Amino acid sequence: MNPYLLGFRCLSCGELHAPDAVTYTCPEDGGNLDAVYDYVRIGREVAPTDLTQAPSRSIWRFGPLLPSPAPSGLPTPLTMLGNTPLYRAPRIEEALDVRAVWLKDDSRLPSSSFKDRASAMVVAQALATGREAICVASTGNAAGALAAMCAGTKLRAIVFVPEGTPEGKLAGILIHGATVYVVRGSYNDAVRIAGEACKKFGWYNRSTGTNPYTREGKKTAGFEIAEQLAHWTAERGFRAPDSVIVPLGDGNILSGVHKGFRELQQIGWIERMPRFIGVTAKLAPSLARTFTSVSETFDEIPSTTIASGISVDVPCDGVAALRAIRSSGGTVIEASDEDMLAAMSTLARDGGVFVEPACAAAYVGLVEARRAGFLRSSDEVVLQLTGSGFKDVRSAVRAAPQPHTITSLDDIQ
Amino acid sequence: MNPYLLGFRCLSCGELHAPDAVTYTCPEDGGNLDAVYDYVRIGREVAPTDLTQAPSRSIWRFGPLLPSPAPSGLPTPLTMLGNTPLYRAPRIEEALDVRAVWLKDDSRLPSSSFKDRASAMVVAQALATGREAICVASTGNAAGALAAMCAGTKLRAIVFVPEGTPEGKLAGILIHGATVYVVRGSYNDAVRIAGEACKKFGWYNRSTGTNPYTREGKKTAGFEIAEQLAHWTAERGFRAPDSVIVPLGDGNILSGVHKGFRELQQIGWIERMPRFIGVTAKLAPSLARTFTSVSETFDEIPSTTIASGISVDVPCDGVAALRAIRSSGGTVIEASDEDMLAAMSTLARDGGVFVEPACAAAYVGLVEARRAGFLRSSDEVVLQLTGSGFKDVRSAVRAAPQPHTITSLDDIQ
Repeated sequence: MNPYLLGFRCLSCGELHAPDAVTYTCPEDGGNLDAVYDYVRIGREVAPTDLTQAPSRSIWRFGPLLPSPAPSGLPTPLTMLGNTPLYRAPRIEEALDVRAVWLKDDSRLPSSSFKDRASAMVVAQALATGREAICVASTGNAAGALAAMCAGTKLRAIVFVPEGTPEGKLAGILIHGATVYVVRGSYNDAVRIAGEACKKFGWYNRSTGTNPYTREGKKTAGFEIAEQLAHWTAERGFRAPDSVIVPLGDGNILSGVHKGFRELQQIGWIERMPRFIGVTAKLAPSLARTFTSVSETFDEIPSTTIASGISVDVPCDGVAALRAIRSSGGTVIEASDEDMLAAMSTLARDGGVFVEPACAAAYVGLVEARRAGFLRSSDEVVLQLTGSGFKDVRSAVRAAPQPHTITSLDDIQ
Repeated sequence: MNPYLLGFRCLSCGELHAPDAVTYTCPEDGGNLDAVYDYVRIGREVAPTDLTQAPSRSIWRFGPLLPSPAPSGLPTPLTMLGNTPLYRAPRIEEALDVRAVWLKDDSRLPSSSFKDRASAMVVAQALATGREAICVASTGNAAGALAAMCAGTKLRAIVFVPEGTPEGKLAGILIHGATVYVVRGSYNDAVRIAGEACKKFGWYNRSTGTNPYTREGKKTAGFEIAEQLAHWTAERGFRAPDSVIVPLGDGNILSGVHKGFRELQQIGWIERMPRFIGVTAKLAPSLARTFTSVSETFDEIPSTTIASGISVDVPCDGVAALRAIRSSGGTVIEASDEDMLAAMSTLARDGGVFVEPACAAAYVGLVEARRAGFLRSSDEVVLQLTGSGFKDVRSAVRAAPQPHTITSLDDIQ
């Protein structure tokens, strides 16, 4: 076990549990857990360049800050995971008058979504603890990631997705040999049944909000962004942007990327935190409603958005996300389905990246935050991209222009 | 211009044309052209580690062996292109009793196909020569790659694809803002109309077989494979495997990857050439028929394969591919549609990579070549993966098992 891992703190009661005393949520009150490390000791014993200049470019190079041991063995999608590109988008900078807009393109991970980071961490933990079967409830991407990360290992993957999951996402799960249950109901119904099934059959539960290792995998995106930003200004180690914009469903991606930066700051490797802007779907309003109140409790409100990746009735990691946004001085923005579809086109045309609607929400957030004056002209902003447009072709067809059908050269005007 | 570039040699008449004397095919007899460099001088003036240890990991680090200058500017999908992962597939090695099977996963390039390498090189050339519009005929992937590589530049992309192009591929082209013409006819009909349109409207033609820069882009996969193989055995520079297996449609990917290795050998950076095994679709038989004869001419035979990426009536770069296969002591294997679909499942389940049918043909080639004794148990083999399974979801649905639909926990047996 990582000697720097102190334990898991409950986000509700605040108690710190020893690493081997918990599996999922807090034994006291069921609150979500958050891994805590000895940041002072890491700062004393580890140099930032030990991580950023490690020969491997996988997420496993961040070992002192990870709860699970790196999976051993030959180079595979699991052992080589990470290091997605960070692009600039000069056309978008010009159009919106923002100094620097960076795109962290996690649609380029093996299963074409950000969720590989979380699934890899949970799979590493499952392998280290001798599990045989691993289960997840998912709107599609987490399940595809779990199936891909289990491929070629001895772990069996069992997934629960809601009806209406895009055909591409479904095919991308099934093809890796996972057992797939399509639940008549919503994503949150799938979460409940998956939880019951794990208890009944003894499967390890990877579901977001339940399993605290997912956030630990997701924070590696924060590490990578900070490392890549430093690289481009010829600095060693890590550097923070002014703002990070993240699509918001369960809130686990936002709380994960935020945690990556927060840990770098706690160790002393970056000086200040970026502001975190979360972007929800207007048609999945639970988290945004709570944000505008002062509370940390969420109503379960049926989601009807086409953006499958952020279609939740209630956010499973909402508390951590709210605290990340509020403590960083950020905000929550709501994106309409129409704006997300239009954003898919803009990102593809001007930024060269083809993403799914939930991911394009980050661009809607950029536009709205700039319009509202929340982002300044002098800001450096990072958009966390989370899933490929090829995973939801139906939405892409709605977002894209029409082709022309021709028989000969004469048909071209 | 690259001072090491001597010119373009016609594969038909053998004449060497000065770099600025040609644009597409040979002015004498219309044969396909092949770029030639001063390999002796490169060997004298460039160290292999100048390339393999360059700070940038993009294809542009191979500059002394590229015909076009690196596109300048901020980090974008175009300027950062390359460096896809090379995985091992231990499950597959065990099942087939082959010492080492590597998967070069080019489905992870920005447009989710290998074709980004070719499109990037042609776009770089178009930008360097002040072109305004660039055109391609494509079965889908080359067009998506062209659209993605033109995104954010001043270049307009115009593409011609055959009817029946998978919906995902089509959406992935349109979303980047390219003008798309769907041709009532085959891929080779699209090639003809695109050629006529380029002449009529003055567009730069990127079509495979017509434009000699595509092979120059594609050879960078060969450079990367040799570099990555050396890395894993802790060698500096480059190292060749025993065999490379490549899906075969027009033949341009195979002739490109082969050229990468051949140039490394001509410079003296690797000692021996790998054998090249090309895998065609049984239902696109033109190239395989010519291979079994002694000729270099191809009959136009209508293709009916579902594997859109290798669905050609006649191979546009067939001569170069045949010579690469024959000179390396390789062979051509024909894959049935059913075997390609089954191979999609095997690669996803055992190798963790989700690819389209045309790409899965490489795995069919591996199985058949091993069964026929063409590959030995002691061999080290590389499969060139060429396109993501998310680009052709209909085929993935055919290849994958079915999900179970449930309402509650009680529905699970």
